[in-house]
Amino acid sequence: MTELESFAVELSHEAARVALPFFRGVFTQDDKGGPGAFDPVTEADRAAEAAIRRLIGARYPDHGVIGEEYGEDRPDAEHVWVLDPIDGTRAFIAGLPLWTTLIALRRDGAATIGAVGQPYLGEIFLGGLSGARLLKGQDETLLKTRACERLDQALIATTDPEIFTGADRAAWDRLRAASRLARLGCDGYAYAMVAAGSIDLVAESELRVWDWSALKPLVEAAGGRFTDWRGHSPHESDGRVLAVGDARLTDQALPLLAAA
Amino acid sequence: MTELESFAVELSHEAARVALPFFRGVFTQDDKGGPGAFDPVTEADRAAEAAIRRLIGARYPDHGVIGEEYGEDRPDAEHVWVLDPIDGTRAFIAGLPLWTTLIALRRDGAATIGAVGQPYLGEIFLGGLSGARLLKGQDETLLKTRACERLDQALIATTDPEIFTGADRAAWDRLRAASRLARLGCDGYAYAMVAAGSIDLVAESELRVWDWSALKPLVEAAGGRFTDWRGHSPHESDGRVLAVGDARLTDQALPLLAAA
Repeated sequence: MTELESFAVELSHEAARVALPFFRGVFTQDDKGGPGAFDPVTEADRAAEAAIRRLIGARYPDHGVIGEEYGEDRPDAEHVWVLDPIDGTRAFIAGLPLWTTLIALRRDGAATIGAVGQPYLGEIFLGGLSGARLLKGQDETLLKTRACERLDQALIATTDPEIFTGADRAAWDRLRAASRLARLGCDGYAYAMVAAGSIDLVAESELRVWDWSALKPLVEAAGGRFTDWRGHSPHESDGRVLAVGDARLTDQALPLLAAA
Repeated sequence: MTELESFAVELSHEAARVALPFFRGVFTQDDKGGPGAFDPVTEADRAAEAAIRRLIGARYPDHGVIGEEYGEDRPDAEHVWVLDPIDGTRAFIAGLPLWTTLIALRRDGAATIGAVGQPYLGEIFLGGLSGARLLKGQDETLLKTRACERLDQALIATTDPEIFTGADRAAWDRLRAASRLARLGCDGYAYAMVAAGSIDLVAESELRVWDWSALKPLVEAAGGRFTDWRGHSPHESDGRVLAVGDARLTDQALPLLAAA
Protein backbone atom coordinates (compact mmCIF):
# COMPACT_ATOMS: atom_id res chain seq x y z
CA MET A 1 0.00 0.00 0.00
CA THR A 2 1.38 3.42 -0.92
CA GLU A 3 1.69 6.22 1.63
CA LEU A 4 -1.28 8.07 0.15
CA GLU A 5 -3.40 4.90 0.07
CA SER A 6 -2.64 4.34 3.75
CA PHE A 7 -3.62 7.92 4.42
CA ALA A 8 -6.93 7.41 2.58
CA VAL A 9 -7.62 4.46 4.89
CA GLU A 10 -6.74 6.62 7.90
CA LEU A 11 -9.20 9.28 6.69
CA SER A 12 -11.87 6.64 6.21
CA HIS A 13 -11.41 5.40 9.78
CA GLU A 14 -11.64 8.96 11.09
CA ALA A 15 -14.84 9.62 9.12
CA ALA A 16 -16.29 6.37 10.49
CA ARG A 17 -15.43 7.33 14.06
CA VAL A 18 -17.25 10.63 13.68
CA ALA A 19 -20.25 9.55 11.56
CA LEU A 20 -21.17 6.18 13.07
CA PRO A 21 -22.60 7.52 16.37
CA PHE A 22 -25.23 9.41 14.34
CA PHE A 23 -26.40 6.19 12.66
CA ARG A 24 -29.44 4.61 14.33
CA GLY A 25 -28.73 6.98 17.21
CA VAL A 26 -31.14 8.91 19.35
CA PHE A 27 -30.58 11.84 17.02
CA THR A 28 -32.20 9.91 14.20
CA GLN A 29 -35.31 9.26 16.27
CA ASP A 30 -35.68 12.97 17.02
CA ASP A 31 -35.68 14.04 13.39
CA LYS A 32 -39.18 14.74 12.22
CA GLY A 33 -38.04 15.92 8.81
CA GLY A 34 -39.88 19.20 9.16
CA PRO A 35 -38.54 22.65 8.31
CA GLY A 36 -35.67 23.60 10.59
CA ALA A 37 -35.68 20.18 12.25
CA PHE A 38 -32.42 18.60 13.28
CA ASP A 39 -31.12 16.60 10.34
CA PRO A 40 -28.84 13.78 11.52
CA VAL A 41 -27.44 13.03 8.06
CA THR A 42 -26.35 16.59 7.45
CA GLU A 43 -24.88 16.77 10.94
CA ALA A 44 -22.97 13.53 10.48
CA ASP A 45 -21.87 14.61 6.99
CA ARG A 46 -20.58 17.96 8.26
CA ALA A 47 -18.85 16.60 11.31
CA ALA A 48 -17.12 13.85 9.34
CA GLU A 49 -16.03 16.17 6.51
CA ALA A 50 -14.66 18.67 9.01
CA ALA A 51 -12.68 15.91 10.73
CA ILE A 52 -11.25 14.67 7.42
CA ARG A 53 -10.28 18.20 6.37
CA ARG A 54 -8.45 18.72 9.68
CA LEU A 55 -6.34 15.60 9.11
CA ILE A 56 -5.53 16.56 5.52
CA GLY A 57 -4.61 20.10 6.50
CA ALA A 58 -2.29 18.84 9.24
CA ARG A 59 -0.54 16.20 7.13
CA TYR A 60 -0.59 17.64 3.60
CA PRO A 61 -1.23 21.38 3.85
CA ASP A 62 -0.61 21.89 0.11
CA HIS A 63 -3.27 19.38 -0.95
CA GLY A 64 -6.63 20.65 -2.18
CA VAL A 65 -10.04 19.49 -0.97
CA ILE A 66 -13.47 19.33 -2.63
CA GLY A 67 -16.30 18.25 -0.34
CA GLU A 68 -20.07 18.20 -0.51
CA GLU A 69 -20.55 20.18 2.70
CA TYR A 70 -17.69 22.69 2.83
CA GLY A 71 -16.96 23.37 -0.83
CA GLU A 72 -13.62 23.81 -2.59
CA ASP A 73 -10.22 24.54 -1.16
CA ARG A 74 -7.26 24.72 -3.61
CA PRO A 75 -9.16 22.69 -6.28
CA ASP A 76 -6.28 23.20 -8.77
CA ALA A 77 -3.59 21.69 -6.56
CA GLU A 78 -1.64 18.69 -7.84
CA HIS A 79 -3.30 16.50 -5.21
CA VAL A 80 -6.98 17.09 -4.46
CA TRP A 81 -9.11 15.05 -2.05
CA VAL A 82 -12.74 14.65 -3.10
CA LEU A 83 -15.09 13.78 -0.22
CA ASP A 84 -18.60 12.57 0.44
CA PRO A 85 -18.65 11.47 4.08
CA ILE A 86 -22.17 10.03 3.76
CA ASP A 87 -23.25 8.75 0.38
CA GLY A 88 -26.69 7.13 0.49
CA THR A 89 -28.64 9.55 2.63
CA ARG A 90 -31.87 7.55 2.36
CA ALA A 91 -30.15 4.35 3.50
CA PHE A 92 -28.66 6.25 6.46
CA ILE A 93 -32.04 7.67 7.45
CA ALA A 94 -33.75 4.30 7.03
CA GLY A 95 -31.24 2.58 9.32
CA LEU A 96 -29.83 0.45 6.49
CA PRO A 97 -26.07 -0.21 6.70
CA LEU A 98 -25.40 0.41 3.00
CA TRP A 99 -24.50 4.12 3.12
CA THR A 100 -20.82 4.75 2.54
CA THR A 101 -18.02 7.17 3.23
CA LEU A 102 -16.43 8.12 -0.10
CA ILE A 103 -12.87 9.43 -0.14
CA ALA A 104 -10.99 9.99 -3.40
CA LEU A 105 -7.62 11.41 -4.27
CA ARG A 106 -7.24 13.16 -7.60
CA ARG A 107 -3.80 13.71 -9.02
CA ASP A 108 -3.50 16.24 -11.82
CA GLY A 109 -7.25 16.00 -12.30
CA ALA A 110 -7.57 12.22 -12.48
CA ALA A 111 -8.95 10.13 -9.60
CA THR A 112 -6.21 7.67 -8.64
CA ILE A 113 -7.23 6.43 -5.17
CA GLY A 114 -10.71 5.54 -3.93
CA ALA A 115 -11.76 4.43 -0.45
CA VAL A 116 -15.37 3.29 0.03
CA GLY A 117 -16.06 2.70 3.70
CA GLN A 118 -19.10 1.27 5.49
CA PRO A 119 -18.54 2.03 9.18
CA TYR A 120 -21.31 -0.17 10.64
CA LEU A 121 -19.89 -3.17 8.76
CA GLY A 122 -16.33 -2.13 9.53
CA GLU A 123 -15.47 -2.42 5.84
CA ILE A 124 -13.20 -0.29 3.67
CA PHE A 125 -12.96 -1.08 -0.04
CA LEU A 126 -9.72 0.49 -1.29
CA GLY A 127 -8.56 0.90 -4.87
CA GLY A 128 -5.37 2.53 -6.13
CA LEU A 129 -2.04 1.99 -7.79
CA SER A 130 -1.24 -0.99 -5.58
CA GLY A 131 -4.45 -2.81 -6.43
CA ALA A 132 -7.89 -3.29 -4.91
CA ARG A 133 -8.65 -4.82 -1.55
CA LEU A 134 -11.27 -5.10 1.16
CA LEU A 135 -10.06 -4.18 4.63
CA LYS A 136 -12.16 -5.48 7.52
CA GLY A 137 -10.65 -5.53 10.99
CA GLN A 138 -7.30 -7.28 10.62
CA ASP A 139 -8.42 -9.09 7.45
CA GLU A 140 -7.37 -8.01 3.98
CA THR A 141 -8.93 -9.57 0.88
CA LEU A 142 -7.84 -8.84 -2.67
CA LEU A 143 -10.70 -7.70 -4.88
CA LYS A 144 -11.22 -8.74 -8.45
CA THR A 145 -14.18 -8.16 -10.73
CA ARG A 146 -15.65 -11.27 -12.29
CA ALA A 147 -15.91 -12.28 -15.91
CA CYS A 148 -19.31 -11.74 -17.51
CA GLU A 149 -19.27 -12.08 -21.25
CA ARG A 150 -22.82 -11.10 -22.09
CA LEU A 151 -25.33 -8.60 -20.74
CA ASP A 152 -28.08 -11.25 -20.61
CA GLN A 153 -25.97 -13.04 -17.96
CA ALA A 154 -25.36 -9.91 -15.94
CA LEU A 155 -26.59 -8.94 -12.50
CA ILE A 156 -27.06 -5.18 -12.72
CA ALA A 157 -27.90 -2.48 -10.19
CA THR A 158 -29.08 1.07 -9.75
CA THR A 159 -30.26 2.90 -6.65
CA ASP A 160 -33.76 3.88 -7.70
CA PRO A 161 -35.21 3.89 -11.24
CA GLU A 162 -37.40 6.84 -10.26
CA ILE A 163 -34.26 8.98 -9.95
CA PHE A 164 -33.75 8.75 -13.72
CA THR A 165 -35.46 11.56 -15.58
CA GLY A 166 -36.63 11.73 -19.19
CA ALA A 167 -34.68 9.61 -21.66
CA ASP A 168 -32.42 8.32 -18.86
CA ARG A 169 -35.32 6.32 -17.44
CA ALA A 170 -36.06 4.66 -20.78
CA ALA A 171 -32.34 3.87 -21.10
CA TRP A 172 -32.34 2.11 -17.73
CA ASP A 173 -35.48 0.17 -18.67
CA ARG A 174 -33.79 -1.04 -21.87
CA LEU A 175 -30.71 -2.06 -19.89
CA ARG A 176 -32.77 -3.92 -17.30
CA ALA A 177 -34.75 -5.74 -19.99
CA ALA A 178 -31.49 -6.90 -21.60
CA SER A 179 -29.92 -8.14 -18.34
CA ARG A 180 -30.45 -11.28 -16.26
CA LEU A 181 -31.36 -9.72 -12.93
CA ALA A 182 -31.53 -6.26 -11.37
CA ARG A 183 -30.95 -5.17 -7.81
CA LEU A 184 -32.03 -1.80 -6.41
CA GLY A 185 -31.20 0.43 -3.45
CA CYS A 186 -27.44 0.18 -3.03
CA ASP A 187 -25.95 3.64 -3.73
CA GLY A 188 -22.14 3.61 -3.66
CA TYR A 189 -22.06 0.15 -2.12
CA ALA A 190 -23.13 -1.38 -5.45
CA TYR A 191 -19.82 -0.29 -7.01
CA ALA A 192 -17.92 -1.99 -4.18
CA MET A 193 -19.78 -5.18 -5.13
CA VAL A 194 -18.67 -4.71 -8.76
CA ALA A 195 -15.08 -4.54 -7.47
CA ALA A 196 -15.74 -7.62 -5.32
CA GLY A 197 -17.09 -9.58 -8.28
CA SER A 198 -20.69 -10.10 -7.17
CA ILE A 199 -22.42 -7.42 -9.30
CA ASP A 200 -21.61 -7.04 -13.00
CA LEU A 201 -22.85 -3.57 -13.90
CA VAL A 202 -24.12 -0.37 -12.29
CA ALA A 203 -25.70 2.49 -14.22
CA GLU A 204 -26.70 5.77 -12.63
CA SER A 205 -27.27 9.40 -13.47
CA GLU A 206 -27.38 12.69 -11.60
CA LEU A 207 -24.19 11.88 -9.71
CA ARG A 208 -22.01 14.71 -8.46
CA VAL A 209 -18.22 14.59 -8.62
CA TRP A 210 -17.94 13.50 -4.95
CA ASP A 211 -20.41 10.67 -5.62
CA TRP A 212 -18.27 8.92 -8.22
CA SER A 213 -14.63 10.02 -7.76
CA ALA A 214 -13.85 7.29 -5.19
CA LEU A 215 -15.75 4.64 -7.15
CA LYS A 216 -13.78 4.95 -10.39
CA PRO A 217 -10.30 4.01 -9.07
CA LEU A 218 -11.82 1.23 -6.95
CA VAL A 219 -13.63 -0.42 -9.86
CA GLU A 220 -10.68 0.07 -12.22
CA ALA A 221 -8.09 -1.26 -9.76
CA ALA A 222 -10.23 -4.41 -9.37
CA GLY A 223 -10.22 -4.95 -13.15
CA GLY A 224 -13.41 -3.19 -14.21
CA ARG A 225 -14.22 -0.21 -16.36
CA PHE A 226 -15.80 3.07 -15.31
CA THR A 227 -17.13 5.50 -17.91
CA ASP A 228 -19.96 7.89 -18.67
CA TRP A 229 -22.84 6.79 -20.90
CA ARG A 230 -20.81 7.56 -24.02
CA GLY A 231 -17.81 5.47 -23.06
CA HIS A 232 -15.64 8.40 -22.01
CA SER A 233 -14.20 9.22 -18.63
CA PRO A 234 -17.05 10.72 -16.54
CA HIS A 235 -17.18 14.49 -16.66
CA GLU A 236 -18.06 16.68 -13.71
CA SER A 237 -20.89 18.39 -15.53
CA ASP A 238 -22.66 15.23 -16.72
CA GLY A 239 -23.29 12.84 -13.84
CA ARG A 240 -24.10 9.69 -15.82
CA VAL A 241 -21.86 6.77 -14.95
CA LEU A 242 -21.53 3.18 -16.10
CA ALA A 243 -19.41 0.74 -14.07
CA VAL A 244 -18.77 -2.78 -15.30
CA GLY A 245 -16.72 -5.65 -13.96
CA ASP A 246 -16.02 -7.05 -17.42
CA ALA A 247 -15.11 -4.49 -20.11
CA ARG A 248 -17.06 -6.47 -22.71
CA LEU A 249 -20.26 -5.29 -21.04
CA THR A 250 -19.47 -1.63 -21.75
CA ASP A 251 -19.78 -2.19 -25.49
CA GLN A 252 -23.11 -3.98 -25.05
CA ALA A 253 -24.55 -1.42 -22.64
CA LEU A 254 -23.53 1.78 -24.44
CA PRO A 255 -25.89 1.38 -27.43
CA LEU A 256 -28.81 0.89 -25.02
CA LEU A 257 -27.82 4.03 -23.12
CA ALA A 258 -26.93 6.09 -26.20
CA ALA A 259 -30.29 7.76 -26.77
CA ALA A 260 -30.24 9.24 -23.27
CA MET B 1 -37.26 -14.12 27.09
CA THR B 2 -39.50 -17.21 27.02
CA GLU B 3 -38.09 -20.69 26.47
CA LEU B 4 -39.42 -20.80 22.92
CA GLU B 5 -38.07 -17.34 22.13
CA SER B 6 -34.63 -18.46 23.34
CA PHE B 7 -34.94 -21.51 21.14
CA ALA B 8 -35.81 -19.33 18.13
CA VAL B 9 -32.59 -17.40 18.77
CA GLU B 10 -30.67 -20.67 19.01
CA LEU B 11 -32.14 -21.76 15.66
CA SER B 12 -31.19 -18.42 14.13
CA HIS B 13 -27.59 -18.82 15.30
CA GLU B 14 -27.46 -22.33 13.86
CA ALA B 15 -28.83 -21.15 10.50
CA ALA B 16 -26.23 -18.37 10.48
CA ARG B 17 -23.41 -20.80 11.20
CA VAL B 18 -24.43 -22.96 8.25
CA ALA B 19 -25.44 -20.28 5.71
CA LEU B 20 -22.78 -17.62 6.24
CA PRO B 21 -19.86 -19.55 4.67
CA PHE B 22 -21.80 -19.60 1.37
CA PHE B 23 -22.09 -15.80 1.36
CA ARG B 24 -19.41 -14.07 -0.73
CA GLY B 25 -17.69 -17.44 -0.79
CA VAL B 26 -15.83 -19.10 -3.61
CA PHE B 27 -19.04 -20.98 -4.39
CA THR B 28 -20.69 -17.74 -5.39
CA GLN B 29 -17.95 -16.98 -7.87
CA ASP B 30 -18.42 -20.37 -9.55
CA ASP B 31 -22.12 -19.92 -10.18
CA LYS B 32 -22.78 -18.93 -13.76
CA GLY B 33 -26.54 -19.15 -13.37
CA GLY B 34 -26.86 -21.57 -16.27
CA PRO B 35 -28.98 -24.71 -16.32
CA GLY B 36 -27.71 -27.28 -13.87
CA ALA B 37 -25.12 -24.88 -12.50
CA PHE B 38 -24.30 -24.91 -8.82
CA ASP B 39 -26.63 -22.50 -7.06
CA PRO B 40 -25.09 -21.23 -3.82
CA VAL B 41 -28.31 -19.72 -2.52
CA THR B 42 -30.25 -22.95 -2.85
CA GLU B 43 -27.37 -24.87 -1.31
CA ALA B 44 -27.14 -22.49 1.63
CA ASP B 45 -30.94 -22.48 1.99
CA ARG B 46 -31.11 -26.28 2.02
CA ALA B 47 -28.19 -26.80 4.39
CA ALA B 48 -29.51 -24.21 6.84
CA GLU B 49 -33.08 -25.52 6.77
CA ALA B 50 -31.87 -29.09 7.31
CA ALA B 51 -29.79 -27.93 10.29
CA ILE B 52 -32.75 -26.08 11.82
CA ARG B 53 -35.03 -29.08 11.32
CA ARG B 54 -32.52 -31.33 13.08
CA LEU B 55 -32.49 -29.08 16.15
CA ILE B 56 -36.28 -28.83 16.27
CA GLY B 57 -36.70 -32.60 15.90
CA ALA B 58 -34.24 -33.23 18.71
CA ARG B 59 -35.71 -30.71 21.15
CA TYR B 60 -39.42 -30.65 20.29
CA PRO B 61 -40.25 -33.81 18.32
CA ASP B 62 -44.00 -33.06 18.42
CA HIS B 63 -43.63 -29.62 16.80
CA GLY B 64 -44.50 -29.21 13.13
CA VAL B 65 -42.29 -27.53 10.49
CA ILE B 66 -43.07 -25.69 7.25
CA GLY B 67 -40.04 -24.72 5.21
CA GLU B 68 -39.38 -23.40 1.73
CA GLU B 69 -36.96 -26.18 0.80
CA TYR B 70 -38.22 -29.33 2.53
CA GLY B 71 -41.98 -28.79 2.66
CA GLU B 72 -44.44 -29.58 5.43
CA ASP B 73 -44.05 -31.83 8.43
CA ARG B 74 -47.00 -32.03 10.89
CA PRO B 75 -48.41 -28.66 9.68
CA ASP B 76 -51.47 -29.09 11.96
CA ALA B 77 -49.49 -29.46 15.18
CA GLU B 78 -50.13 -27.00 18.02
CA HIS B 79 -46.65 -25.53 17.51
CA VAL B 80 -45.39 -25.15 13.94
CA TRP B 81 -42.07 -23.58 12.91
CA VAL B 82 -42.17 -21.69 9.61
CA LEU B 83 -38.75 -21.24 8.00
CA ASP B 84 -37.02 -19.31 5.26
CA PRO B 85 -33.29 -19.68 5.89
CA ILE B 86 -32.42 -17.19 3.14
CA ASP B 87 -34.91 -14.48 2.37
CA GLY B 88 -33.56 -12.01 -0.19
CA THR B 89 -31.98 -14.28 -2.73
CA ARG B 90 -30.91 -11.42 -4.99
CA ALA B 91 -29.21 -9.61 -2.12
CA PHE B 92 -27.37 -12.82 -1.22
CA ILE B 93 -26.21 -13.36 -4.81
CA ALA B 94 -25.17 -9.72 -5.16
CA GLY B 95 -23.01 -9.87 -2.03
CA LEU B 96 -25.23 -7.41 -0.16
CA PRO B 97 -25.60 -8.13 3.57
CA LEU B 98 -29.36 -7.49 3.69
CA TRP B 99 -30.64 -11.04 3.15
CA THR B 100 -32.13 -12.55 6.28
CA THR B 101 -32.85 -15.83 8.00
CA LEU B 102 -36.56 -15.92 8.87
CA ILE B 103 -37.75 -18.19 11.67
CA ALA B 104 -41.32 -18.06 12.95
CA LEU B 105 -43.28 -20.07 15.48
CA ARG B 106 -47.00 -20.47 14.90
CA ARG B 107 -49.19 -21.54 17.79
CA ASP B 108 -52.67 -22.80 16.91
CA GLY B 109 -52.25 -21.24 13.48
CA ALA B 110 -51.15 -17.74 14.58
CA ALA B 111 -47.54 -16.55 14.30
CA THR B 112 -46.41 -15.63 17.83
CA ILE B 113 -42.61 -15.51 17.61
CA GLY B 114 -40.46 -14.10 14.83
CA ALA B 115 -36.67 -14.06 14.52
CA VAL B 116 -35.11 -12.09 11.66
CA GLY B 117 -31.39 -12.73 11.53
CA GLN B 118 -28.63 -11.18 9.39
CA PRO B 119 -25.60 -13.40 9.90
CA TYR B 120 -22.97 -11.13 8.29
CA LEU B 121 -24.04 -8.27 10.57
CA GLY B 122 -24.41 -10.60 13.55
CA GLU B 123 -27.90 -9.24 14.15
CA ILE B 124 -31.05 -11.03 15.28
CA PHE B 125 -34.29 -9.03 15.51
CA LEU B 126 -36.61 -10.97 17.82
CA GLY B 127 -40.30 -10.37 18.47
CA GLY B 128 -42.64 -12.34 20.68
CA LEU B 129 -44.71 -12.31 23.85
CA SER B 130 -41.88 -10.81 25.87
CA GLY B 131 -41.41 -7.87 23.50
CA ALA B 132 -39.16 -6.92 20.61
CA ARG B 133 -35.40 -6.59 20.77
CA LEU B 134 -32.25 -6.51 18.66
CA LEU B 135 -29.58 -8.99 19.71
CA LYS B 136 -26.06 -8.25 18.48
CA GLY B 137 -23.15 -9.98 20.17
CA GLN B 138 -23.63 -9.37 23.89
CA ASP B 139 -25.77 -6.28 23.28
CA GLU B 140 -29.52 -6.27 23.57
CA THR B 141 -31.58 -3.26 22.47
CA LEU B 142 -35.33 -2.92 22.93
CA LEU B 143 -37.12 -2.18 19.67
CA LYS B 144 -40.00 0.21 19.30
CA THR B 145 -41.68 1.49 16.18
CA ARG B 146 -41.82 5.26 15.84
CA ALA B 147 -44.81 7.54 15.70
CA CYS B 148 -45.75 8.76 12.23
CA GLU B 149 -49.10 10.44 12.08
CA ARG B 150 -49.45 11.04 8.37
CA LEU B 151 -48.50 9.15 5.22
CA ASP B 152 -46.97 12.28 3.70
CA GLN B 153 -44.38 12.21 6.51
CA ALA B 154 -43.63 8.52 6.06
CA LEU B 155 -40.50 6.77 4.83
CA ILE B 156 -41.80 3.74 2.97
CA ALA B 157 -40.14 0.72 1.40
CA THR B 158 -40.63 -2.17 -0.98
CA THR B 159 -38.10 -4.55 -2.49
CA ASP B 160 -38.66 -3.89 -6.18
CA PRO B 161 -41.64 -2.12 -7.80
CA GLU B 162 -41.21 -4.37 -10.86
CA ILE B 163 -42.27 -7.36 -8.72
CA PHE B 164 -45.77 -5.92 -8.47
CA THR B 165 -48.04 -7.13 -11.25
CA GLY B 166 -51.20 -5.58 -12.67
CA ALA B 167 -53.20 -3.43 -10.28
CA ASP B 168 -50.68 -4.04 -7.47
CA ARG B 169 -48.13 -1.90 -9.30
CA ALA B 170 -50.53 1.01 -9.63
CA ALA B 171 -51.36 0.63 -5.91
CA TRP B 172 -47.66 0.94 -5.00
CA ASP B 173 -47.27 3.97 -7.26
CA ARG B 174 -50.19 5.68 -5.48
CA LEU B 175 -48.68 4.84 -2.12
CA ARG B 176 -45.27 6.17 -3.14
CA ALA B 177 -46.75 9.39 -4.49
CA ALA B 178 -48.55 9.95 -1.18
CA SER B 179 -45.47 9.32 1.00
CA ARG B 180 -42.44 11.45 1.86
CA LEU B 181 -39.65 9.15 0.69
CA ALA B 182 -39.28 5.61 -0.65
CA ARG B 183 -36.46 3.13 -0.23
CA LEU B 184 -36.01 0.03 -2.37
CA GLY B 185 -34.18 -3.27 -2.19
CA CYS B 186 -34.45 -4.40 1.43
CA ASP B 187 -36.52 -7.63 1.45
CA GLY B 188 -37.25 -8.85 4.99
CA TYR B 189 -34.73 -6.43 6.47
CA ALA B 190 -37.10 -3.53 5.78
CA TYR B 191 -39.57 -4.94 8.31
CA ALA B 192 -36.82 -5.13 10.92
CA MET B 193 -36.29 -1.40 10.31
CA VAL B 194 -40.02 -0.82 10.88
CA ALA B 195 -39.63 -2.59 14.24
CA ALA B 196 -36.52 -0.49 14.96
CA GLY B 197 -38.36 2.75 14.20
CA SER B 198 -36.41 3.94 11.15
CA ILE B 199 -38.87 2.94 8.39
CA ASP B 200 -42.59 3.73 8.70
CA LEU B 201 -44.27 1.44 6.19
CA VAL B 202 -43.53 -1.55 3.95
CA ALA B 203 -45.91 -2.82 1.28
CA GLU B 204 -45.27 -5.96 -0.74
CA SER B 205 -47.09 -8.62 -2.69
CA GLU B 206 -46.37 -12.16 -3.87
CA LEU B 207 -45.04 -13.17 -0.45
CA ARG B 208 -45.25 -16.79 0.62
CA VAL B 209 -46.14 -17.83 4.16
CA TRP B 210 -42.45 -18.32 5.08
CA ASP B 211 -41.66 -14.83 3.79
CA TRP B 212 -43.95 -13.02 6.24
CA SER B 213 -44.61 -15.31 9.23
CA ALA B 214 -41.54 -14.14 11.16
CA LEU B 215 -42.11 -10.50 10.24
CA LYS B 216 -45.60 -10.19 11.69
CA PRO B 217 -44.82 -10.98 15.35
CA LEU B 218 -41.65 -8.85 15.14
CA VAL B 219 -43.44 -5.76 13.86
CA GLU B 220 -46.40 -6.24 16.23
CA ALA B 221 -44.23 -6.82 19.31
CA ALA B 222 -42.44 -3.55 18.54
CA GLY B 223 -45.74 -1.66 18.45
CA GLY B 224 -46.63 -1.78 14.76
CA ARG B 225 -49.39 -3.34 12.74
CA PHE B 226 -49.15 -6.08 10.12
CA THR B 227 -52.06 -6.81 7.79
CA ASP B 228 -52.94 -7.73 4.24
CA TRP B 229 -54.07 -5.02 1.80
CA ARG B 230 -57.62 -5.18 3.15
CA GLY B 231 -56.69 -4.67 6.78
CA HIS B 232 -57.09 -8.31 7.78
CA SER B 233 -54.51 -10.74 9.07
CA PRO B 234 -52.47 -11.92 6.04
CA HIS B 235 -53.76 -15.11 4.51
CA GLU B 236 -51.54 -17.85 3.10
CA SER B 237 -53.19 -17.74 -0.31
CA ASP B 238 -52.92 -13.97 -0.87
CA GLY B 239 -49.37 -12.77 -0.32
CA ARG B 240 -50.02 -9.02 -0.05
CA VAL B 241 -48.74 -7.52 3.19
CA LEU B 242 -48.72 -4.05 4.73
CA ALA B 243 -46.53 -3.37 7.75
CA VAL B 244 -46.66 -0.03 9.56
CA GLY B 245 -44.93 1.32 12.63
CA ASP B 246 -47.84 3.60 13.53
CA ALA B 247 -51.33 2.06 13.19
CA ARG B 248 -52.70 5.38 11.93
CA LEU B 249 -50.86 4.75 8.66
CA THR B 250 -52.85 1.58 7.97
CA ASP B 251 -56.08 3.55 7.60
CA GLN B 252 -54.41 6.01 5.22
CA ALA B 253 -52.70 3.34 3.13
CA LEU B 254 -55.59 0.89 2.73
CA PRO B 255 -57.74 3.11 0.47
CA LEU B 256 -54.75 3.58 -1.86
CA LEU B 257 -54.18 -0.19 -1.97
CA ALA B 258 -57.87 -1.12 -2.14
CA ALA B 259 -58.25 -1.31 -5.91
CA ALA B 260 -55.48 -3.92 -6.14
